Amino acid sequence: MTRIQQQYAFLTECLKLSEIFRQALLPTSHRRENDAEHSWHLCLMAITLAEHSNQPVDLARVLKMLVIHDLVEIDAGDTYAYDTARLAGQHEREARAADRIFGLLPPDQGAELRACWEEFEAKITPEAKFAAAVDRLQPVLLNILTGGEKWREHGVTRAMVIARNQHANDGACAVWAHALTLLDDAVARGLLPAE
Amino acid sequence: MTRIQQQYAFLTECLKLSEIFRQALLPTSHRRENDAEHSWHLCLMAITLAEHSNQPVDLARVLKMLVIHDLVEIDAGDTYAYDTARLAGQHEREARAADRIFGLLPPDQGAELRACWEEFEAKITPEAKFAAAVDRLQPVLLNILTGGEKWREHGVTRAMVIARNQHANDGACAVWAHALTLLDDAVARGLLPAE
Repeated sequence: MTRIQQQYAFLTECLKLSEIFRQALLPTSHRRENDAEHSWHLCLMAITLAEHSNQPVDLARVLKMLVIHDLVEIDAGDTYAYDTARLAGQHEREARAADRIFGLLPPDQGAELRACWEEFEAKITPEAKFAAAVDRLQPVLLNILTGGEKWREHGVTRAMVIARNQHANDGACAVWAHALTLLDDAVARGLLPAE
Repeated sequence: MTRIQQQYAFLTECLKLSEIFRQALLPTSHRRENDAEHSWHLCLMAITLAEHSNQPVDLARVLKMLVIHDLVEIDAGDTYAYDTARLAGQHEREARAADRIFGLLPPDQGAELRACWEEFEAKITPEAKFAAAVDRLQPVLLNILTGGEKWREHGVTRAMVIARNQHANDGACAVWAHALTLLDDAVARGLLPAE
């Protein structure tokens, strides 16, 4: 295969991201959001909220991470943030998926995008911390916009939301502080139990 | 409203992009693709194919354009590439939509993203030419992957696909050349009439 043919094979395979459904509901249609839509909305959040990153970030690297960060779920499936049993095997499942999916690309490019995904997973660089913050804040927003239905379905409390998502503070503390006010408001409105 | 509240109002409104359905079908589920999924896949194409841009591009600007380029369709709706009647009023509808949607943001940021959208529409800068090329090549790929069903439904020929999309050549001539081989193959397989 030529280089463009390999790239097209990767781009074709990645269309399956639209078939991976998440727990969070979309506010207008009230259907479950899929990973492609989620990844797009994270990019829009990163563009809109970049000024609140704790450290200056290279926006191109943030957006690259967000565009590719869920591709491994094509093979590994979505792991719900509060499913502790499935979270245990998540890394191994996703590493195998990364081998296969980034392996469709020309080797130099596959290695580059795989490294970008690993940077996101490690959450050490300013770009990865900010991208991870956005990834945690977005489902909180969706849950609030849809009346906390999925939180109640899964028995999630405000304390659990904070324990799971507080590392958003490492990436964008001002946005995390805003999210905390939204969570307090959700508790006050009865959408989310405090404990 | 605080700055973050304005940004959250914009991010909430923009979730409606997932409810705007396009003509092109997704290959696995065979359902129509929505604008949020489309915008995400364009970002992945831009990342993967950037090396084929005719001119060097600032990838952050390309990705920003692709993330926001269809937001106006929340109000203006999707205009099918071969619907000449609706194409006539498209610009005015979309300009009004841009006023409202980018107007949800803090004024400085709304002006910046509106300028980014106008840059995309004008197709003059290297970034806009490359982004526009990707935007034209993606539905061609989807149509080929789904057996040309939507082309036949709308009476689209190879000559029409080329007339409508050949400015992709201005952004990424190598990728356009590859697309032409895919179109020739589609004609040979009976998926698309030549004339």
